[in-house]
Amino acid sequence: MGMEVFLHKGRGVLLAYDQGLEHGPTDFDERNVDPTFVMRLAATGRFNGVVFQKGLAEKYYDKQVPLILKVNGKTNLVKGEPVARQICSVKYASALGAKAVGYTIYAGSAHESVMLEEFGRIQEQAHELKMAAIAWIYPRGEAIKKDTAPEIVAYAARVGLEAGADAVKIKYTGDVESFKWAVKSAGKAKVFMSGGPKAPTDTDFLRQVRGALDAGATGLAVGRNVWQNSDPAKMARLLQRLVIENLSVEEALRD
Amino acid sequence: MGMEVFLHKGRGVLLAYDQGLEHGPTDFDERNVDPTFVMRLAATGRFNGVVFQKGLAEKYYDKQVPLILKVNGKTNLVKGEPVARQICSVKYASALGAKAVGYTIYAGSAHESVMLEEFGRIQEQAHELKMAAIAWIYPRGEAIKKDTAPEIVAYAARVGLEAGADAVKIKYTGDVESFKWAVKSAGKAKVFMSGGPKAPTDTDFLRQVRGALDAGATGLAVGRNVWQNSDPAKMARLLQRLVIENLSVEEALRD
Amino acid sequence: MGMEVFLHKGRGVLLAYDQGLEHGPTDFDERNVDPTFVMRLAATGRFNGVVFQKGLAEKYYDKQVPLILKVNGKTNLVKGEPVARQICSVKYASALGAKAVGYTIYAGSAHESVMLEEFGRIQEQAHELKMAAIAWIYPRGEAIKKDTAPEIVAYAARVGLEAGADAVKIKYTGDVESFKWAVKSAGKAKVFMSGGPKAPTDTDFLRQVRGALDAGATGLAVGRNVWQNSDPAKMARLLQRLVIENLSVEEALRD
Amino acid sequence: MGMEVFLHKGRGVLLAYDQGLEHGPTDFDERNVDPTFVMRLAATGRFNGVVFQKGLAEKYYDKQVPLILKVNGKTNLVKGEPVARQICSVKYASALGAKAVGYTIYAGSAHESVMLEEFGRIQEQAHELKMAAIAWIYPRGEAIKKDTAPEIVAYAARVGLEAGADAVKIKYTGDVESFKWAVKSAGKAKVFMSGGPKAPTDTDFLRQVRGALDAGATGLAVGRNVWQNSDPAKMARLLQRLVIENLSVEEALRD
Amino acid sequence: MGMEVFLHKGRGVLLAYDQGLEHGPTDFDERNVDPTFVMRLAATGRFNGVVFQKGLAEKYYDKQVPLILKVNGKTNLVKGEPVARQICSVKYASALGAKAVGYTIYAGSAHESVMLEEFGRIQEQAHELKMAAIAWIYPRGEAIKKDTAPEIVAYAARVGLEAGADAVKIKYTGDVESFKWAVKSAGKAKVFMSGGPKAPTDTDFLRQVRGALDAGATGLAVGRNVWQNSDPAKMARLLQRLVIENLSVEEALRD
Repeated sequence: MGMEVFLHKGRGVLLAYDQGLEHGPTDFDERNVDPTFVMRLAATGRFNGVVFQKGLAEKYYDKQVPLILKVNGKTNLVKGEPVARQICSVKYASALGAKAVGYTIYAGSAHESVMLEEFGRIQEQAHELKMAAIAWIYPRGEAIKKDTAPEIVAYAARVGLEAGADAVKIKYTGDVESFKWAVKSAGKAKVFMSGGPKAPTDTDFLRQVRGALDAGATGLAVGRNVWQNSDPAKMARLLQRLVIENLSVEEALRD
Repeated sequence: MGMEVFLHKGRGVLLAYDQGLEHGPTDFDERNVDPTFVMRLAATGRFNGVVFQKGLAEKYYDKQVPLILKVNGKTNLVKGEPVARQICSVKYASALGAKAVGYTIYAGSAHESVMLEEFGRIQEQAHELKMAAIAWIYPRGEAIKKDTAPEIVAYAARVGLEAGADAVKIKYTGDVESFKWAVKSAGKAKVFMSGGPKAPTDTDFLRQVRGALDAGATGLAVGRNVWQNSDPAKMARLLQRLVIENLSVEEALRD
Repeated sequence: MGMEVFLHKGRGVLLAYDQGLEHGPTDFDERNVDPTFVMRLAATGRFNGVVFQKGLAEKYYDKQVPLILKVNGKTNLVKGEPVARQICSVKYASALGAKAVGYTIYAGSAHESVMLEEFGRIQEQAHELKMAAIAWIYPRGEAIKKDTAPEIVAYAARVGLEAGADAVKIKYTGDVESFKWAVKSAGKAKVFMSGGPKAPTDTDFLRQVRGALDAGATGLAVGRNVWQNSDPAKMARLLQRLVIENLSVEEALRD
Repeated sequence: MGMEVFLHKGRGVLLAYDQGLEHGPTDFDERNVDPTFVMRLAATGRFNGVVFQKGLAEKYYDKQVPLILKVNGKTNLVKGEPVARQICSVKYASALGAKAVGYTIYAGSAHESVMLEEFGRIQEQAHELKMAAIAWIYPRGEAIKKDTAPEIVAYAARVGLEAGADAVKIKYTGDVESFKWAVKSAGKAKVFMSGGPKAPTDTDFLRQVRGALDAGATGLAVGRNVWQNSDPAKMARLLQRLVIENLSVEEALRD
Repeated sequence: MGMEVFLHKGRGVLLAYDQGLEHGPTDFDERNVDPTFVMRLAATGRFNGVVFQKGLAEKYYDKQVPLILKVNGKTNLVKGEPVARQICSVKYASALGAKAVGYTIYAGSAHESVMLEEFGRIQEQAHELKMAAIAWIYPRGEAIKKDTAPEIVAYAARVGLEAGADAVKIKYTGDVESFKWAVKSAGKAKVFMSGGPKAPTDTDFLRQVRGALDAGATGLAVGRNVWQNSDPAKMARLLQRLVIENLSVEEALRD
């Protein structure tokens, strides 16, 4: 039901830009605070999709890149067990031109059942409208000591598969071997590595991406490591070569 | 989708009068306790909009000034993490003649997700009926030490943009520079400074407004600083000159 | 939209009989425990309306007096922050012959938002069916030290006005001056004094009512001070003279 | 609206068999664990109605005796303030052949408002489908010291009347005088004594029933005192003579 | 209403594979982590049904074996009183080809009423679409010391019957005698023993299954004891002989 629109040679690099709600403008600078900049970057950087909340999609989406509409979200100002409820209806997302909806499930949260239920409804509505349903699965709550622990990441991947996600966005475990297990656990649900906070160097970040790809990932959803980069266009090109052209980190960096 | 109706030369001064529910009649005196007085002031003072709860709109709205219907609210008698749920349906607001709905989101509250979800639904209904959706974003809850801190105000502004607000009402940070960042964070969502409690002097208040405008605000939503003023008509004129005519505080006060 | 049906010469005395649910039969004696007695009293005592829960309306209402259907309620057996949810739909109330719905909002309760939202929905449905919506506003919860404090009663009145009530039922503050402020705060929403527990003497009670009327109240909703009275018919007559004929306490008592 | 179908000479003996959910099979023995046994007993014992949860009705109800479908319920494994939510829709109950729905309200529970609201909806749907609505009113929660205290039982009866129940099922207070008050408090809602746990002797039980009848009860809803009896058919006959034939305990036992 | 499709000679062996959500991939190895393997095993092992969450059904179900769609679920990462809400609508389950829906009720949990209510709705929808409703009844919460205690297992069985389940999945009590009581308590609802964690030896496991069958069970729902087995095909054959052919453990193992 359509992750294909987000893929090139079976791979995809998605530009994530929902941090304004999740973290606040503290993630931004004078340039990337402007969604226009990111929208343009998505096109010029040849990203396979761009991730927006409804407000950005309504005011900035220019249809040059397929749209993934993030339909839930929360601020990081709230304490306690995390929960994010639906802000955008699937129908509205579709009217805004989205080809997929994104939804975060905080697996392990005391409110997990609320989100599993809501995602369940959203997934069915999305499929009815021929849209893909992508699950951001973030293990959280009392029981989660380390959300990049291999068994936790694999569990996250599996939750997405079981709940009917067409693709899951999960954190990288840190090494190829353990991430392979997560990819296997996701089955036919495509795996997108979560870009995460800005890595110390470009090479560090590219090695993580390469590791995820080598483990079988379809690609990544990346935000801060691109638009917080001093040269976002260059990082976009590097990711193209790494993910779509399937080059090694060294090959990608060469030239 | 229609903030234009509330603007003149791209600017707007909205007369807020939802304090009866939010704070109680303690904000009022013998004159301004009467919504008729405020309704008349809205017209004679050439305000660009008036903000009412449904009860006032039903009984007092005379259509001389565009109506913003505040569709949620709460008393200040309730303790604990704040939440305000929908009291007026969007359809009812439209039938009462509203050109926009207003909704308060207590970002950071333990009930934030309830309000983000509800605003999401209301925003879609409003747009369907060609009404604007204005978000009052008030950061609250355990994690919020100071709700006028620059990063908190900027976050509030961004929450509104991301959630699909056509305009946000936020507190002033206290200086132009930091408020610029909040305005930038709001992107294409228009920014209205929250008038707040009565300032010590008119000049004090006008300087705040001037600061917000210089930072890029579209205008302000003001209640107590007008109708608690000893001469509301005069303050209305001053705001016209400052906001719509774009004069300096000194120019506005002159004559 | 119809408080007129409950008024005579612009005034009204409503016979309240929802105490069976709110307090239990402990309020009753062998005679007034029977709703038939109260229904008959409503007619012979020329009350302007009678307040029933749905069960009483279904089994006892004889259409001789306009019906106000109380659509929410709770027992006094429950501890903690008060909440009363809707028991009777507006449509059902209308089918039972009601000309108005009554709804209690415990302003200040931790569950206030639940009731404001529910009242909001009920009010719209009532108006659509050409029924009035009357709000019983009872401030409760941690923050409420004394629910007859002038500023609290005025706040209650205002909550009703803002939320769209056609009339509010509030407690008497104890003196004319402070109740005037409450009446003013209620604006165009009509004010009915809450009869409250049985007063020590008839004269005591009549003085309270007179005070409320002098402060601008439309009338009162009275239960125990009538049907717990040794001579309910006489008290009904006294209230007629005081409220409808607008006599002084002394004049009313004379003859 | 139809309690008549459950009455004979204005009286009724209802066979209750919802204990499987409420208490578990611990209430049963090899014989009465089988709903077929109880269904047959209902017919041969000439009961005026049988009380089943939906599962029993679907699989065992043979239409020989009018059916009361218990539409909510809970296990006794749950601790804390009691709540039982709707398990069977009124429409489904009707399709299963029910002539009445039964619903338990734990008056005084922290969740009372949930149940009063749900019963309110169910009552209206039942009446629309020409079914009776019977309320099991069980006072529970912190504030309830003794749920057979006269004032508590009378309150329970009144809650049922006010909420629109056609009949209430309440516990016996222990003596005729105090139960009279409960019956009076129930007004036109018919009163069925709750059979309760197995009494020490048949005579003990019959004296309670006689007391309830003498106080004005319409009959009783009895489970364990019949099907836990060593001779259920005999107890059924005794109840017929006591309740329907209106004999004294001594007359009933004679023969 | 159709448990027949899952039975052969009145017996059934269902292949459970919802552990990916309930326990995570920690239950899996390189082979059985792949739903394709399990789907193939279901067919070649002649299972009478396969249990999938919606995600697996959508991506792997090949219609060779009747499908039971598990419509609720949760991860084991969440602490506190358990609750699992609906993830898949009954309509969607039907569209995916399911002949039955499965739903877990944590009887005794503080959230029991939520699940009883939800199952109630699902059961009615399933029956309307001619699908069976199977209840996984797992007693949990403060009050449950040991969830295989005979009285607890019997209670679980009865909850399923009362709530309208066509079949219940319950744990084995450990001996034939006590399990007989559970089967009796389930009445006409068919009883499937829950396979549970991998038993120390095949014979151990077969003895449990034999015990359940001897007590009157219709069969079992088994996952880990098959697909964690070193020779799943062999275990499938053994279960066929034991359950469908009704052989003794010794007879089944012979050959």
